[in-house]
Amino acid sequence: MNRIAQLFNIKYPIIQGGMIWCSGWELASAVSNAGGLGLIGAGSMHPEVLKEHIQKTKKTTNKPFGVNVPLLYPEIEKIMQIIIDEGVKIVFTSAGNPKIWTKHLQEKGIKVAHVVANTKFAKKADEAGVDAIVAEGFEAGGHNGREETTTFILAPLVRFVTVKPLIVAGGISSGRSMLSAMVLGADAVQIGSRFVASDEASAHMNFKNEVLKSEEGSTHLAFTKLVPVRLIKNNFCKKIIMAETQGANKEQLAEMLGIGRAKLGMFQGDTNEGELEIGQVSALIKKIMPVKNIIDDIILEYKTAKAQVNHVRFDF
Amino acid sequence: MNRIAQLFNIKYPIIQGGMIWCSGWELASAVSNAGGLGLIGAGSMHPEVLKEHIQKTKKTTNKPFGVNVPLLYPEIEKIMQIIIDEGVKIVFTSAGNPKIWTKHLQEKGIKVAHVVANTKFAKKADEAGVDAIVAEGFEAGGHNGREETTTFILAPLVRFVTVKPLIVAGGISSGRSMLSAMVLGADAVQIGSRFVASDEASAHMNFKNEVLKSEEGSTHLAFTKLVPVRLIKNNFCKKIIMAETQGANKEQLAEMLGIGRAKLGMFQGDTNEGELEIGQVSALIKKIMPVKNIIDDIILEYKTAKAQVNHVRFDF
Repeated sequence: MNRIAQLFNIKYPIIQGGMIWCSGWELASAVSNAGGLGLIGAGSMHPEVLKEHIQKTKKTTNKPFGVNVPLLYPEIEKIMQIIIDEGVKIVFTSAGNPKIWTKHLQEKGIKVAHVVANTKFAKKADEAGVDAIVAEGFEAGGHNGREETTTFILAPLVRFVTVKPLIVAGGISSGRSMLSAMVLGADAVQIGSRFVASDEASAHMNFKNEVLKSEEGSTHLAFTKLVPVRLIKNNFCKKIIMAETQGANKEQLAEMLGIGRAKLGMFQGDTNEGELEIGQVSALIKKIMPVKNIIDDIILEYKTAKAQVNHVRFDF
Repeated sequence: MNRIAQLFNIKYPIIQGGMIWCSGWELASAVSNAGGLGLIGAGSMHPEVLKEHIQKTKKTTNKPFGVNVPLLYPEIEKIMQIIIDEGVKIVFTSAGNPKIWTKHLQEKGIKVAHVVANTKFAKKADEAGVDAIVAEGFEAGGHNGREETTTFILAPLVRFVTVKPLIVAGGISSGRSMLSAMVLGADAVQIGSRFVASDEASAHMNFKNEVLKSEEGSTHLAFTKLVPVRLIKNNFCKKIIMAETQGANKEQLAEMLGIGRAKLGMFQGDTNEGELEIGQVSALIKKIMPVKNIIDDIILEYKTAKAQVNHVRFDF
């Protein structure tokens, strides 16, 4: 049996990326109900808001779901206590040291996956005893690694340094790309951008429409002097690119970023001046659909692509 | 039958990238003799040198081979005349407008493939009537597209805009990554970096050793204000990164680049001050091998990976 499907007790090895301002209870429960693993993105939630989202998810699905927690979150202790108290069984951690929380969560019966962008942190996650590792390539939306290693390179690199179940993220939106990632060594895939373009995502409709308009070259890995983040090249992002090109330093960039940009763009719908975090794969996304249709579509294409591997094109 | 194998009359749909200073007659004939398609990289050759390499290739293989020609080459007319006069049957063009030469070459019985990094140029190549299109992702070594689109995104994007035979390049070094690219829609793959680390590549041994030492993050897409090129981060590249970070302009960067850097690094072996063009996939290359062993290795892994798609890991 597929190791990730088994680990999380889900039908399909499709994990929905935990995305700030986009993945609340409605998206998470829809993905879990459709046979994938839904994740509530805690990164944009105050502890009390997270609690509410967990409770609503429990009411709207009886399938497994999880919470994504960036470990540098300021109120991390409160967040983790809520997760434990509410009986959440799956936690995806990112942006921080996996050693600090993994054991503690596992002692409470929680399965832990950790997101990495390089083999150094994959090894650290392995040593910390996580249950699964997510390897996320350069093409992914949102926060990203400094090495700029793409999914095509990162997936086999991480596969070589750990025997843990491996989830590959970055560039995946379809059944064909899902199979492709699994050929590279993934046990499962994590999909973010495509779920932003779903009915159930809490992203503002203006942001969803920007995702549909995206083409190749529409996103950029900005703020590489601070924390690299892939954004749609809107007015705000273009100003950042200009400043970076002209040699702006960390402090200047942090000032230009200010606070609340991500909420402004993705949740409040100011697509000119807000931050719009999305992956390169948005260039392939052309329709807002209900989550169930997205997952059914991916699985159908996956099965078709899998059958086609026996086609003459693959023979020589 | 596989369309690319058929088009070029080769055993395996593996094309060796035409690389300046690395792919002369010895590499091209070795790849062709091993069942792939060897390409002489004309980009670093004076016309008379190219003529000599073509003649030596003809003497050392009776299999199909080709020449890679960057269309912005200063003595392009002379180069094309030599290719025609010497009876070369396959030309890969890059870095320029495919409309100028395609028809002319085809009238002489030459098959033409054109390298692109985005769908705009894929459509232009299609309209120009090329026989095949090479889609090369951000992770590839050497010259590269401005949109920074990775192979995972570019391959399906290009597959959607043309029905021509499609060769995917960037990030491919193994049978597993070859199958993965074919699942994304490729009919064949083009492999560069791995062939640099071959006995037959004309790259300086110092450069080959730098390829083996490469890890994730060892390469960088430099000179994005001029023509983007992926290089190993040696002393020279680090100076360029520093200058770019501090806002250096086009003219300053061109002056720092100077002339002859690529030859200095890749052919003469000055790994500190020369340009060392290589792909991100160098992080996965750990051994210098004879070309025949490289290709046998890729094909064996490809077949294993193809059989594994029927493994339980892929079933749900």
